[in-house]
Amino acid sequence: MALTLRSSVWSITVAALVLVAFAHSTQADPLPSWQDSDSKTRIVDFVESVTDPESDSYITARDRVAVFDNDGTLWAEKPIYFQLLFAIDRLQKMAKEDPSIASSGALKAAVEGDLEALSASGHEGLLEIITVTHSNISAEDFTEEARQWLEKKHPETGLRYRDMVYQPMLELLRYLRDEGFQTYIVSGGGLHFIRAFAEEVYNIPPNQVIGTTLKASYQMVDGEPAIMKEGQLAFLDDKEGKPVAIDTRIGIRPVIAVGNSDGDFQMLEWSTSAPGASLGILIHHTDGEREWAYDRDSAVGSLERGLDEASSRDWLLVNMEQDWEQIWPVQP
Amino acid sequence: MALTLRSSVWSITVAALVLVAFAHSTQADPLPSWQDSDSKTRIVDFVESVTDPESDSYITARDRVAVFDNDGTLWAEKPIYFQLLFAIDRLQKMAKEDPSIASSGALKAAVEGDLEALSASGHEGLLEIITVTHSNISAEDFTEEARQWLEKKHPETGLRYRDMVYQPMLELLRYLRDEGFQTYIVSGGGLHFIRAFAEEVYNIPPNQVIGTTLKASYQMVDGEPAIMKEGQLAFLDDKEGKPVAIDTRIGIRPVIAVGNSDGDFQMLEWSTSAPGASLGILIHHTDGEREWAYDRDSAVGSLERGLDEASSRDWLLVNMEQDWEQIWPVQP
Repeated sequence: MALTLRSSVWSITVAALVLVAFAHSTQADPLPSWQDSDSKTRIVDFVESVTDPESDSYITARDRVAVFDNDGTLWAEKPIYFQLLFAIDRLQKMAKEDPSIASSGALKAAVEGDLEALSASGHEGLLEIITVTHSNISAEDFTEEARQWLEKKHPETGLRYRDMVYQPMLELLRYLRDEGFQTYIVSGGGLHFIRAFAEEVYNIPPNQVIGTTLKASYQMVDGEPAIMKEGQLAFLDDKEGKPVAIDTRIGIRPVIAVGNSDGDFQMLEWSTSAPGASLGILIHHTDGEREWAYDRDSAVGSLERGLDEASSRDWLLVNMEQDWEQIWPVQP
Repeated sequence: MALTLRSSVWSITVAALVLVAFAHSTQADPLPSWQDSDSKTRIVDFVESVTDPESDSYITARDRVAVFDNDGTLWAEKPIYFQLLFAIDRLQKMAKEDPSIASSGALKAAVEGDLEALSASGHEGLLEIITVTHSNISAEDFTEEARQWLEKKHPETGLRYRDMVYQPMLELLRYLRDEGFQTYIVSGGGLHFIRAFAEEVYNIPPNQVIGTTLKASYQMVDGEPAIMKEGQLAFLDDKEGKPVAIDTRIGIRPVIAVGNSDGDFQMLEWSTSAPGASLGILIHHTDGEREWAYDRDSAVGSLERGLDEASSRDWLLVNMEQDWEQIWPVQP
């Protein structure tokens, strides 16, 4: 009996020590794929300071809102936004059944798979393709189609599209949630497209995905109600649209905003110009070896104003090549 | 020492018994302001069954989404929507500075305080007043103005507008949240108006308020960024609009939907026509003594189709007079 008691005490002591050691190691490195550089230090220092009730910059749990752009911030966007590659695949299928669908320069370029000509058609051309391919389908069916498409492999990396997310950002999302933050996606990409993988891949539920939306209608289809996507743009969640969407959807001004292009400028400005502690982060694509190196004048994800003003606005510019030890969550 | 130990054991035993009794009483009556009628039984039975992992109708925490209309469901709406009374007050102030503002029949009726003529101007007239009074103001200032206005007293009950919420519904909201539900407002009323009191009064945070929205823009005002409300309608969150907004904002089909008028019909239909357990509830205003008695042909909160089809659709029709022991959270 005495021995049992003593060994129980021992077991408990050992278990407690293991727990303490584990807790300590977790605390010591919430971002294992980040190099031990200034970027990591700044992020961790910020989070520790705003979650410490003794700190002057303490932020209550209610106001711990962090917003993340998606394309180029949480996952890759080269050679062109993945949603557009999905739309092109869908358009090509549609054109096989009805070739007359290629009724404009942008649509023709897409059907022919000419990404360069397509890029040259600008924002309007891209929107035209989205419009044609994202209508007359229920939100549910659309999301399911996108989910299946995301299993396809990227031609350059050989990774599935759904795996082309950044491991350091997965860690950052998780770290922030562990510290009581709500993590939202605020993307120029389409709402239903992002939802097709956000919950499984980022652990971000559908109500925390904010994106560009098309008009939708409530209809009876075969006697069952459905949300049907219509072609026309309802809300473009880019540039000045991002703070507006944040107000509509969240209603709390974020204290952390993370982006990578000038489409995110206003979101960072809105999040970092209120009184109180805040952190603006721009992911700078500097790694031509493991990812793609681009910033100014890039057809996709162009970063100019952000690059010019990051320093004066005290935004953290993350250098992908130097700050990230690992890019992808799986080996290519 | 022995005595101390014995009395400690006693204290702990008594404390435990008190706790058990308390827990039991809480469990026994999560809805104390509801009469012990079939309505209460049906609600409690539903919640117990979908939260019981052993039950066939078990719903995981992720999918426990409950949506509530606001006007006439969570708070009163007579003689007319309170937001409209707020808008009329604001319009009258504006007209004192610029009388030419009363440029239409509806606006004139509002400035003269003629609610009957105003009601006769229909939905468009009401929208016109909202448009004129809800523009050129930042979302933040607007919400603050609404917050102050809600301290005013209702002419008939003498209660502050912010206190004209239904005590049984406050209990239902809380009960559902205690059982792991997310509680959303899905209202035809204005997003920023509802946010002015939803968090304090209903314990519903800004990101769980869905309402009608006006266009908004991101602007620099005196060197600081602001979300400015513009007059034009962006999204009318009523009738068919409600399921569309639920899809955009929540992205999960609700399993509980509560409304009181035909503006909520599609929301209830959408929530209760999916496979799996669901509960549609309509609050029927039957209490002319303590509240207002109305349904068919009411200028505000008209309930016709819902009344006709509640039974065949197995929606619960709550009879305010018979099912609610208490209406308001404070004494008039």
